[in-house]
Amino acid sequence: MAPKLDGYFKQVDKLSETFIDRLRKAVAIPSISADDDRRQDVVKMSEFLVSELTSLGAHVESRPLGPQPGKRDLDLPPVIVARHGSSPDKRTILLYGHYDVQPALKDDGWATEPFALSIDDKGRMYGRGSTDDKGPVLGWLNAIHAHREARIELPVNLLMCFEGMEEYGSEGLDDFIEKEAKPGGFFADADAVCISDNYWLGTEKPCLTYGLRGCNYYSVAISGPGQDLHSGVFGGSAQEPMTDLMRVLGSLVDTNGKIKIPGINEMVAPLSEEEKSIYGGISYTIDNLHESIGSTTGIYEDKENTLMARWRYPSLSVHGIEGAFSAGGAKTVIPAKVIGKFSIRTVPDMESGKVDECVFKHVKEVFAALTSKNTLDVQLMHAGNWWVASPKHWNYTAAAKAVEAVFHTKPDLTREGGSIPVTLTFEKATGKNCLLLPMGSSTDAAHSINEKLDRRNYIEGTKLLGSYLHYVAAEELGG
Amino acid sequence: MAPKLDGYFKQVDKLSETFIDRLRKAVAIPSISADDDRRQDVVKMSEFLVSELTSLGAHVESRPLGPQPGKRDLDLPPVIVARHGSSPDKRTILLYGHYDVQPALKDDGWATEPFALSIDDKGRMYGRGSTDDKGPVLGWLNAIHAHREARIELPVNLLMCFEGMEEYGSEGLDDFIEKEAKPGGFFADADAVCISDNYWLGTEKPCLTYGLRGCNYYSVAISGPGQDLHSGVFGGSAQEPMTDLMRVLGSLVDTNGKIKIPGINEMVAPLSEEEKSIYGGISYTIDNLHESIGSTTGIYEDKENTLMARWRYPSLSVHGIEGAFSAGGAKTVIPAKVIGKFSIRTVPDMESGKVDECVFKHVKEVFAALTSKNTLDVQLMHAGNWWVASPKHWNYTAAAKAVEAVFHTKPDLTREGGSIPVTLTFEKATGKNCLLLPMGSSTDAAHSINEKLDRRNYIEGTKLLGSYLHYVAAEELGG
Repeated sequence: MAPKLDGYFKQVDKLSETFIDRLRKAVAIPSISADDDRRQDVVKMSEFLVSELTSLGAHVESRPLGPQPGKRDLDLPPVIVARHGSSPDKRTILLYGHYDVQPALKDDGWATEPFALSIDDKGRMYGRGSTDDKGPVLGWLNAIHAHREARIELPVNLLMCFEGMEEYGSEGLDDFIEKEAKPGGFFADADAVCISDNYWLGTEKPCLTYGLRGCNYYSVAISGPGQDLHSGVFGGSAQEPMTDLMRVLGSLVDTNGKIKIPGINEMVAPLSEEEKSIYGGISYTIDNLHESIGSTTGIYEDKENTLMARWRYPSLSVHGIEGAFSAGGAKTVIPAKVIGKFSIRTVPDMESGKVDECVFKHVKEVFAALTSKNTLDVQLMHAGNWWVASPKHWNYTAAAKAVEAVFHTKPDLTREGGSIPVTLTFEKATGKNCLLLPMGSSTDAAHSINEKLDRRNYIEGTKLLGSYLHYVAAEELGG
Repeated sequence: MAPKLDGYFKQVDKLSETFIDRLRKAVAIPSISADDDRRQDVVKMSEFLVSELTSLGAHVESRPLGPQPGKRDLDLPPVIVARHGSSPDKRTILLYGHYDVQPALKDDGWATEPFALSIDDKGRMYGRGSTDDKGPVLGWLNAIHAHREARIELPVNLLMCFEGMEEYGSEGLDDFIEKEAKPGGFFADADAVCISDNYWLGTEKPCLTYGLRGCNYYSVAISGPGQDLHSGVFGGSAQEPMTDLMRVLGSLVDTNGKIKIPGINEMVAPLSEEEKSIYGGISYTIDNLHESIGSTTGIYEDKENTLMARWRYPSLSVHGIEGAFSAGGAKTVIPAKVIGKFSIRTVPDMESGKVDECVFKHVKEVFAALTSKNTLDVQLMHAGNWWVASPKHWNYTAAAKAVEAVFHTKPDLTREGGSIPVTLTFEKATGKNCLLLPMGSSTDAAHSINEKLDRRNYIEGTKLLGSYLHYVAAEELGG
């Protein structure tokens, strides 16, 4: 039996100006986690959440994380954890969001003051943090608020985890989550996890995100001379590390993105007919790609291959070179030591350690074939695993029904090319299904100037989050 | 009949402390041409030369060069031109040197104050400009001084050209030389040119330098996306300019320095048996190479091939990439536009324009073979020609005899891998033979910290410069 949501929807509409005012107050607090001088504002933002959640009847705790590593006199902002409801008869859903924001200065090119919510006649609400991630975090508060006002009982118990360092590497969070997910911890009885911190694939159609690629990042250092040399004096008589590095980096991938390291492509999970059929239905066009890359230099001419390349196949990018001449103009230097940087986006069923093995073997073989006297050192700089959840899990089927109830359309089931590391942390720590349920759209310019959240995405998104709680409470086990 | 030089030599020895004091006074003036705030010291150094030359009986003029391009309120330092003797029966030798110096700060790592001449117990005279190029410039003054004191008539007329912007690109000098070399100009009656502004190949044996390589410097820009992209989001769906650039830059040269651009090596003048036989006699060892490059990563294991690779064969160096990620750490960027920089050192008989043709053709072909949608733009950034003089010219044979008279050994006949552009300017403007007659040794650390000139090189070098004037006056026409 489908949940009855009309009362809730009406209440959200009724309170919409209150909800926008809540967002206005939050945006006005410049909670920039990367800026030490703004740390007090990050803390102020955490206090705002504590106050709001308390007034909504939640049990709230502000959990200190201690001093920021490497900065003795600066404490990390607290993690705000909250519980709303503890009925043993209800499912318990763990919500994650972050209350810190990216840096922003009017002088960066903002059309409006970044820390003053500014709404234009098309309902675009500009302000730093509007879409990333204050809007979605407040969406959960709004959902509780509207239920409370409409005297509708929440059909699930809610656990909340709102952090203040997401834009600066989530320092301290992984340990915290792992600890609290253990028996007796704050998150111990979670049945599923929902994260609202990403975006629709376009602007019209909501999506549920069930996969993220991983990333293995490598350095290839080649060194020879004891110091940088003058190319006039030594060109032709000394072996040059840059010459070797160009050969090594040129052997990794071709113009059309095909990875040329033996063994990598072989690890990729085969494409089933069932999965293949998904891509055709996704709301996306090649024009969308061209618009977002600002050119027509895409690899594929069709939507299906483009989406598969972004979501379910690995890619290899050469990012740059450390130690070579990188400024404008001309300099006749032979760099003594150059470090190439490249990364591989990983997908199921690539094992991180085996990817490393293939990379190291290939790079060493290419270098050995050069018979160079220079010295090679190839290293993994960091690795983050890919993540894929089952979109057939009740957590997802519930969310899909909620989308239909609010937007009258089935959501696209999407994956993303980039990583959201906390997803994997929650999945590992809780052992439960994680759902990525975005509120904002692809045009929201998170991390950029003129970040915004459309009024529609905020208000209908608040309806979606609340509806999801009803469907996830009612959904039969499955997936 | 060999010139009688004993009287001159004795006078030089007698005045040696006076000459060292002259160098001390010159080093004490921090005439750093690259530092606007030191421009008054560059001018002060020019005034010092005017005063010294005048007291030595020369006719001296301080020629203004006008404001420094791009700096309205800052005048270029003057060119000091001087004439000593104007007998129509004598040959006229044009001398070039520079009185400005590289920047130097004690904090850069100098063991002594850079602008206070400091002489250690091995006779090493430390100070900025000691070897580059105040020592050699004062060497000429010392030679005149000793002749005057010993009442020995100079057997040649001298023209002098001492500039104050050499370490900052010799701004304004080319036009000045061209103008003054024309009929009626200050340098119009020069019969030969002598430049003392380079170094011995080692520390024991003097050399005469008769060739320099040229340099054609190229940029290869590859662009695609409208802005930098996130490799997680777009990796695999967008063609990446760095991928293409690695392929292009990897096609230019191999580990052992062999240029792989068709047509380049074919332009190189063939090695005659006569030329080949020169290299074996040069005072140089593979250990010298390893010491100067700070490693054993040289291309050749023998002296002859090493010297030929530096002096008479072209080389290609990849210097770096503009626009890619170049800092430490890891950044997951797909750079939108990357500009590779490389240069080719040119030698006889390579024509600069034909080198460009070969480079452009090759780069475009390699790129075309990639069938990339990205855009390629390959450009020549700057070109300077190679230069080779005839070491059989009387200017050289005279200098060789002077070396034997002072050092009791035949000089090595060397070429250099790098360029000294003013050499070509003088040769073109005057149409006369140019000789590079170095005073300092390979260990003098010009442009580096702890620059020095050995007392022996300065005093015996003063004898050499004076002796050269006697031999060049007496040498029969030839070469």
